This record gives sequence, C-alpha cells and structure tokens, in this order.
Amino acid sequence: MNNRLCEMFGIEAPIFAFSHCRDVVVEVSRAGGLGVLGMARAHPDRVEEDLRWIDAHVGGRPYGVDILMPARYEDVAEVDIDALPAGHVAFVRQLLDDAGIPRLSPEQADRAARELLAGFHMTPRGSLRMLEVCLRHPIKLIVNALGSPPRELVERAHALGIKVGALAGRTEHALRHAAVGCDLVVAVGTEAAGHTGDITSMVLWPRIVDAVAPLPVLGGGGVGRGRQVAAALALGCEGVWCGSIWLKTVQSELVPEIRAKLLAAGPADAVLTRTVTGKPCRTLRNAFTDAWDQPGAPRTLPAPLQNMLWWAHGRTRVERAKAEAFLTYPVGQLVGDMNAESSVRQVVQDMLLELAETKLRLDAMLG
Amino acid sequence: MNNRLCEMFGIEAPIFAFSHCRDVVVEVSRAGGLGVLGMARAHPDRVEEDLRWIDAHVGGRPYGVDILMPARYEDVAEVDIDALPAGHVAFVRQLLDDAGIPRLSPEQADRAARELLAGFHMTPRGSLRMLEVCLRHPIKLIVNALGSPPRELVERAHALGIKVGALAGRTEHALRHAAVGCDLVVAVGTEAAGHTGDITSMVLWPRIVDAVAPLPVLGGGGVGRGRQVAAALALGCEGVWCGSIWLKTVQSELVPEIRAKLLAAGPADAVLTRTVTGKPCRTLRNAFTDAWDQPGAPRTLPAPLQNMLWWAHGRTRVERAKAEAFLTYPVGQLVGDMNAESSVRQVVQDMLLELAETKLRLDAMLG
Repeated sequence: MNNRLCEMFGIEAPIFAFSHCRDVVVEVSRAGGLGVLGMARAHPDRVEEDLRWIDAHVGGRPYGVDILMPARYEDVAEVDIDALPAGHVAFVRQLLDDAGIPRLSPEQADRAARELLAGFHMTPRGSLRMLEVCLRHPIKLIVNALGSPPRELVERAHALGIKVGALAGRTEHALRHAAVGCDLVVAVGTEAAGHTGDITSMVLWPRIVDAVAPLPVLGGGGVGRGRQVAAALALGCEGVWCGSIWLKTVQSELVPEIRAKLLAAGPADAVLTRTVTGKPCRTLRNAFTDAWDQPGAPRTLPAPLQNMLWWAHGRTRVERAKAEAFLTYPVGQLVGDMNAESSVRQVVQDMLLELAETKLRLDAMLG
Repeated sequence: MNNRLCEMFGIEAPIFAFSHCRDVVVEVSRAGGLGVLGMARAHPDRVEEDLRWIDAHVGGRPYGVDILMPARYEDVAEVDIDALPAGHVAFVRQLLDDAGIPRLSPEQADRAARELLAGFHMTPRGSLRMLEVCLRHPIKLIVNALGSPPRELVERAHALGIKVGALAGRTEHALRHAAVGCDLVVAVGTEAAGHTGDITSMVLWPRIVDAVAPLPVLGGGGVGRGRQVAAALALGCEGVWCGSIWLKTVQSELVPEIRAKLLAAGPADAVLTRTVTGKPCRTLRNAFTDAWDQPGAPRTLPAPLQNMLWWAHGRTRVERAKAEAFLTYPVGQLVGDMNAESSVRQVVQDMLLELAETKLRLDAMLG
C-alpha cells in the first residue's frame, strides 16, 4: 500500500492493533501491521518484562505502547476503599448474594484489596514510571488514551525518533492533540470498546480528518474487516485502529469463559454504560450492568469510585465463582460479528483480502 | 455509475432522499437521484395535492413515497387527550410558564386540539387511505418506515411495477423484510434522524448486506457527503438513504428559526431521546429534551402518549411564541456538518464530486 502511515512506520498495511496482550501485539506487527500494547491495566513492574518479551519475539518489526498520560502531572488522590458509600456497597453485595455467589473469606478479601490498590496505580506517577521503562525499548509509537499528551513528552519522544498519537472522540480533542505536536490522531467512534464518546465513526472520522489536515488520522470504532478498512480510507483516514476484533483470537488475553460469551453476543449486547467506571464505557452487557437499570437501584458513582466499588466488592467474588452471568469485558458493537475463534494472522489476512475485493467492487461500480 | 439500483430505477446515482418536503423530492429526482416523500406527518387530504404537484414538476423522473404501514391492520386506539397523566401535563405547563411562554387562549387551545387529532391520523386506516392515493400516481418505490410491509401490499405494488423497500435497524428486521418480498432494504444506523436503533452504520450496514444478500441495501444514517457515499459502497451497500442533509437546503420545509438552529448545532446536539415520542428518537437538543434529565422530572410516557403530551400542551405554545430555546426538529449527528445553507442540486453535485475524488484517492492508495 502506498500510504503515508506505511512509510512513517515502515509497515505493509496501516492496521494499528490495540491490545492488552503482548502476543497480539507481536503477531500483528509480524503480519505487517503495527501492534500497540495497552498499559491501562498493567502494573508498572510488569512492563519491563512484557516489552523485553516483545523485543525478543517481534523480529525487529515496529510496535508501540498506549498509555494513560494526563496533560497535567497533578497526582490524583490516593485510593480509599472506605470512601465508598455504604448503600452502594450493600447494593452490590446483595446483588451477588441473590445470585448465589459466595462471599470472600477474610484472606481473600484482603488479597482482593491489595490487587485493587495495584490495579489503581494508573496515576500520573505510575504512568510516568511506565513511560520511563518504555523509552528504554525500541518503541516506534506512543499513543495517549487520556487527552492530549504533555508537550514535553511529545518533544522527548520526537528526539528519540518515536511518533506520538492520541485518541479523540470529538473534533476539539483532535485539535488540541495537533496543537501539542502529535504526529497522528486516532478518531474513535462511539461504537468502540471502553471509554468512548457519543459520535459515530461515520460522522466523526471525516470531521476530524478535515479538522487536523494534513495530519494523518486512524479510524477507530467498528473496524474488524476489510470493508470497514476500505470505509475508513474512503472517509479520509489513512489507517485503522482496531481493538475488539483481537479478542476473538486464540492469542488474546481472555479466559475461555469470557471469550465464549463474546462469540455468542449480538451487537446490541455491547452497551454504553456508566456502571463499570462511572464514565460512559462500552462493555459486554451482563447481570451487573443490567442491575443498575432496575427500579430502586442507586445512581452510579462518579469515577473512579464506581470502578473501585466493583473491584473491591464484585470482581473477585465473580471471578472466583466463574459466575457466567456477571462475566464481562470492554468490547465494541463489532462483538456481534465475532462469532468464531480465529488467529491474529488470519484476521489480518482476511482484512487485507476483503480490502482488495472491495477495491475491485468499487472499480466495477465507479469505473 | 454501474449499479443495480441505478438500473432498477433508471437513475444516474443511487442517492435516495427522504424528505417531508415535495420540493426536495422533485429536486433530488431531477438531479439524478431518487426523491422519496415522507408521509408520517402528512394529512391524508394533502397527499393527492402533493403528489399531483410532484408529477407536474418532476419531469418524468422516478420518485417514491415513505409510509408508516404496520404489518397487521389492527387499528390503534383512538387518540384521547384526557388520557394524559395530570402530573405530566402540569410538568410541561410549568416548564413553559417558567420560560415565559404565554398560555393559549381557549380558542387557540381548541384549534391545537383539532390539529393534534389531524396529526395523529397516522393510524393503519389513515396509512391505507394515503396508500390508495399514492397508487394512482406514477410512483416507482414505496418504503415502509414501520417494520415489514404486509405481503399483500408488496404483491399489489409489484403488479403495478412499483418496488418496495423497508427500514431496518437490526439484522432481524432486514431478514423479515426480505421474507415478505421487499426489493431492497434501508439499513439505518443509530446516527440517523428520528426513530432509530442503537447500532451504528459502520457496524450495521455490512451485517445487513451479508444477511439479505443478494438483495440490494441502502445505507442510511450519517450520509451527507461523497466520502460517506463511498464508505457506504465500500461497506457493501449499493446506494445511500439521506434525510438530514436536505434540511440545510433552501428547498426544505423548515422555518428559518429552526434552520438557523440546525446550522449552528454540533454533532452532539442531535440527541437520542424518549422525550419526543416515548421511543428513542434523535432530535435537536432543546429546553424540552433537557428538562426531562433534571432531578425531579417525571419519567417519559410510553408512545404515543409522550408525543400527544407535547402536541397538546407544548408544541403550539412554543411555535406561537417562537420560543427559540424550545425549537427542535428530528435530525441526525450529521447536523454538526451542516453549517451553511445550500440548494438540493448543490448538495447532490458536491456528493458526486467528492465521491469521484474519493475514488481517485483510493486508486492512488490501493493501486
């Protein structure tokens, strides 16, 4: 493909793969795209090990990292489990009791609390620690998933030959990313997994393409096959940003029980809900997301309290019990098209094949 | 363009334009697309006059009609204004009082009630009356906006050489349309104006294309420019279904005050709300849609009561007072891109020009 992003990164196809799983990152980069390791749930101590593993397996192909780096380095308040309202704690406890999910023993509860504290190390200070580790590895791209990156970070990355991008769900965000010196913008439609805005890819992508031109834009949200890659290029993007589609691959991080739920789900099962983190987040509908819609349910808590509520009082109980009705994972509306397990290499090959077929179809139709 | 839909209807470009305004219908058909007159708000007595006007002005070009035809002919209950809960009536009255909007005189209230009854003639019996009128005109397409059309209607239309289509927001709907003999399916993403589902165009269109193949599919929701037409074709659609974009044209039915609000709005101002009809409906955010999100607001009523509530107690007061904060219109997320008045012909020409440019860009990128 003849494309600025392919030239910029020395890749064969402008398919950027977001994944929390190092295996997916490696496989996408080896298949001609560019894997980007998501760090939002990583513990700083694990980053060095993961990147060393990637370096050993990626065969010299380019890869990147995705971090949560706020524009200002003010540290957020320390996590305080006791700050959770008693009524909300009781609501979650009762919900799981009613579903027959065993409570934790004191030792289990203690371990869950420690995991919670570890999981909430995604403070600016934690991000900085991770970033320092990343900069000692041959990464080619840093993507910021939390607003515009600090200008100093952009300059430091550029001095090391690393490109910088950032996610945008609105034109205003994209313009700020351009203003701090980003090399590309990832325009993310509401159909995407995880935290997302409310504008759809069809409407959002061309708006952002026009707003930040000539900066290249990746289209994210709803991309899992070649026709969608072609649509992204048609809408003015120069590449795609895919996350959900890798969850159906054998390389992904999912436990079999969750993957089975994803493979069985329809597109409307990927709900945009505040029940997970307190902010709109698209995730697989489950007994927990449903419960908050029932009459008498409390309102969700603001972030990060809602997320803490689940980690401290739901997550571990559900995982230990393998309570199928409560299992979930952030996933986009594309989940309805993820009906069979596959491999990362197969997904990339299928995408490129359908992209080529689409081009032939357009040639026949448009002359 | 070399395309089955162009052949099917003898049109130059597979651009299908939904509009309540006969001027838009005529202009699109004359520009090489196919105008479709929306009847949801028409009074049966007006249909004959409108279609006669179209016949006189369309220059023999094909056009169609969009009706609300339920699959079963059971008549819905008669409209009963007194069935509205007193608390809801008081909520609306107070809201408008607080905004300084004058109450209606008894005569005005009486006329509003009569208009309400006329506006709610969209019963199956009313639809049938309209349909009989339509079938005496040289229409080439009937689109049903309310589920699958009755099989008898499809057969009768086919005997007259008229094609039949229907709107679908889910794959299941599209499959039912195919099963009753529809000639095409309009796949409508959540970004569209009016009543809409929750799946976005990027995800929904290719699903429906695959599900009903080889039936042709029109992509609706988020289409207002050539890049989006190209994206629809890339995703497997053979044409597009556009509604919102015509609202920015001088030919549209909008009063200047509402058009000015649309031209100033951003994409997030087109909210999906139950406050208008009781069902999820995308419309321009305004003081009425906002009011129901406030603490202490009642829950919205089920359809059709919520719509009656507004027609009987809000609409006329607001229109008489030209209360800018309450003016609204059903519109898609595309509203953020509708920043300047234009003409129908210009919109179509711009679409086709950008479609051709997009093809050249794809050629350069994909070889």
